[in-house]
Amino acid sequence: MRAVDLIRAKRDGAELTPEQIRFLIEGYVSGEVPDYQMSAWAMAVFFRGMTARETAALTLAMAESGDTVDLSAVRGVKVDKHSTGGVGDTTTLILAPLVASCGVPVAKMSGRGLGHTGGTIDKLESIPGFRVELSQQEFVAQVNRIGAAVISQSGNITPADKLLYGLRDVTATIEAVPLIASSVMSKKIAAGADAIVLDVKTGGGAFMKTVDDSIRLAEAMVAIGTEVGRRTVAVISDMNQPLGNAIGNALEVREALAVLRGESGVSPDLIEVTLTLGAHMLVLGGAAPSVEAAKETLRAKLASGEALRKFAELLGAQGGDPAVADDPSRLPSAARVVPVPAPRAGAVTAIEAEALGTAAMLLGAGRATKSSSIDLSVGIRLLKRIGDTVDAGESVAELHVNAAMGGEALDDVLRRTAAAFELRDAAAAPPPLVRAVVTKDGVERFD
Amino acid sequence: MRAVDLIRAKRDGAELTPEQIRFLIEGYVSGEVPDYQMSAWAMAVFFRGMTARETAALTLAMAESGDTVDLSAVRGVKVDKHSTGGVGDTTTLILAPLVASCGVPVAKMSGRGLGHTGGTIDKLESIPGFRVELSQQEFVAQVNRIGAAVISQSGNITPADKLLYGLRDVTATIEAVPLIASSVMSKKIAAGADAIVLDVKTGGGAFMKTVDDSIRLAEAMVAIGTEVGRRTVAVISDMNQPLGNAIGNALEVREALAVLRGESGVSPDLIEVTLTLGAHMLVLGGAAPSVEAAKETLRAKLASGEALRKFAELLGAQGGDPAVADDPSRLPSAARVVPVPAPRAGAVTAIEAEALGTAAMLLGAGRATKSSSIDLSVGIRLLKRIGDTVDAGESVAELHVNAAMGGEALDDVLRRTAAAFELRDAAAAPPPLVRAVVTKDGVERFD
Repeated sequence: MRAVDLIRAKRDGAELTPEQIRFLIEGYVSGEVPDYQMSAWAMAVFFRGMTARETAALTLAMAESGDTVDLSAVRGVKVDKHSTGGVGDTTTLILAPLVASCGVPVAKMSGRGLGHTGGTIDKLESIPGFRVELSQQEFVAQVNRIGAAVISQSGNITPADKLLYGLRDVTATIEAVPLIASSVMSKKIAAGADAIVLDVKTGGGAFMKTVDDSIRLAEAMVAIGTEVGRRTVAVISDMNQPLGNAIGNALEVREALAVLRGESGVSPDLIEVTLTLGAHMLVLGGAAPSVEAAKETLRAKLASGEALRKFAELLGAQGGDPAVADDPSRLPSAARVVPVPAPRAGAVTAIEAEALGTAAMLLGAGRATKSSSIDLSVGIRLLKRIGDTVDAGESVAELHVNAAMGGEALDDVLRRTAAAFELRDAAAAPPPLVRAVVTKDGVERFD
Repeated sequence: MRAVDLIRAKRDGAELTPEQIRFLIEGYVSGEVPDYQMSAWAMAVFFRGMTARETAALTLAMAESGDTVDLSAVRGVKVDKHSTGGVGDTTTLILAPLVASCGVPVAKMSGRGLGHTGGTIDKLESIPGFRVELSQQEFVAQVNRIGAAVISQSGNITPADKLLYGLRDVTATIEAVPLIASSVMSKKIAAGADAIVLDVKTGGGAFMKTVDDSIRLAEAMVAIGTEVGRRTVAVISDMNQPLGNAIGNALEVREALAVLRGESGVSPDLIEVTLTLGAHMLVLGGAAPSVEAAKETLRAKLASGEALRKFAELLGAQGGDPAVADDPSRLPSAARVVPVPAPRAGAVTAIEAEALGTAAMLLGAGRATKSSSIDLSVGIRLLKRIGDTVDAGESVAELHVNAAMGGEALDDVLRRTAAAFELRDAAAAPPPLVRAVVTKDGVERFD
């Protein structure tokens, strides 16, 4: 087998066999297939696409290219959840204890933030003492004991995906649906998931700008799951504004705690998406007969305080301060709060999530490069959302800044944050939040 | 400027500016743009094509990536000729003295053979004493003195093309018309041509299998020539069988000499294509008012012996034995001649040129790799052409083999040679030889 022949076959629209795809991926990881052949192949995939069988084979080859997590010792159906990248998206922090409190085990590996996107592991580290690294044995034992564990991705998970993603990033081949889909799914499969709930973001702040494109990506991922025997459901949710109102690590933990405490009226968008994702997790986990019934169960666990108790238990199990659950003031706080005034009166019609993610990064909440250090206390809180009206000079957001931040750097973040709010004369209705659900049986659209 | 943005722009169908293309090519040669970005870009070009302006910019950037030949000291219009790769194609050997004898200077750099294709420089080296390397000064002086010089490509000519071609070869991006066209034209421009006559082969033994595809390639090359101010004409000629009857270095020199001696009835296809190419060279060189008039001039130079005398003069000027012109027996001869019997009776309907080129290579006439050594005496002579009928066992060709060749290796070449002749019950008419001529004013088809 020669890589050049496989590139030519893909270029000319042929379907590669699973063996051929495995040859490419294994050769790429071992160094026998060079970067320049993989990038030409990726560009051919951009133009020609991949069949469901090819995409599944690519996913499995990448999943098996490095370490895999063996969750067979965890009792029950292990349901993983993945978001295609959001800003102000704290659903994992809420779902881990909430779903676990309903009896579905949550054995979750999460990542750190980079650029404008936050990472669950960074957020958890804002809880004093919380350990994000457990041995595989500790990880499995904790899930069996309390139903949940959230740890940092460790070991050599999907090295093929890391290599290929890095290559695609510099060869303009990121935007190939089968490659995006297999990248996501390979990591979930390597992490040991039996079933997968995907949150595919759509809109201005998302990678996929339109619902149709988001559905195409979701269908590709669901098709992979079906092909490799992992039940997979994808929820298409709006990202024309950040999901919650907090952007920044401790700020997002506070917001998650507010939801877990059942505070009503706080972050209704975040709650709705969380309940939708959680409901699908319960259904896939066999803990509820229907999405509607599952939502009722989840609401009851929030109202009864059981979800909050599970969160405290999770913190305690991983060395964190469990008192944070009832007393968020134990979380790190920024030195001061700076209001962001609206430059004009008007109605908020869109909020650029990516711009706010970048602004929060500039405050210190995120990393410009993988090796940057971050300040867990700082970030941005939104005070206005789409559909709200503001007067000129009224605060649309507040910056939580550390003592060192000021002068030109602060002015820059203020400008960026204010500019992220699109203000018009005529008010826009808030966008529908859950736009569609994609399962192996088809697409259900809600707009 | 970032290469990834240029790849994305091409991927999405945008036109790159000349500056952007120069950035890619200069960066590639200097090592700043890595192979993996160039291969992704080449694959995007395969799918998206290039505009005439882009292709011209690519050609110039490659032509100027290394040494260029300055022919300004040569008097007259320097007309170069290029073939897209043939088997049994000795047109250059004939055209150099023939065109020079008509007063149009021929300052030609030629290459060596590789794989199934022969090279003019190898053929010339079968003439005892012939020097294929001259200094640029000697080269120019010889052309001014006797009207012709044929030398080996030397120096660092179009390194960008060499790099890019090598990369395309292993990334399935050879078959992109603008890249093929710019590769050819960049070498001609770097070699100092004022005007260019292209021989674009078409049919089973050619890179382009159909006349339409060959015309597309020809149009791309003519468009480049027009764009960069070099008058360019392309002749589309048949390659459903080798052009001449000889394949192998000294054998091809003998055939060229037969044509130059004006032997009638010998290799009429080779003569027709040679006269057509030569006529366009005379017209572009300002030595004839029309193609028809030019053909008359060329025929007269063959008939008068002036072309043959010019060949002897060319040999003498470059250290070769001028007596070869009148006495081809001074050329190296193979140890013995082995007939190739037809496996069945029938009519010849096609002769696979590439298969015969490979068979000749296996006899030692060509190189499997760039460093292989060759035997100038060996090769294949065709005894039958399309339209001829044969009896079972009648010879369709003869192998000229050296003393070491025998046994399994010889049987293999015999098998390959016999198999290259397609024999059917019903005779086919010989294919039309010159299928079309492409100029900047359009396409003239002859079928």
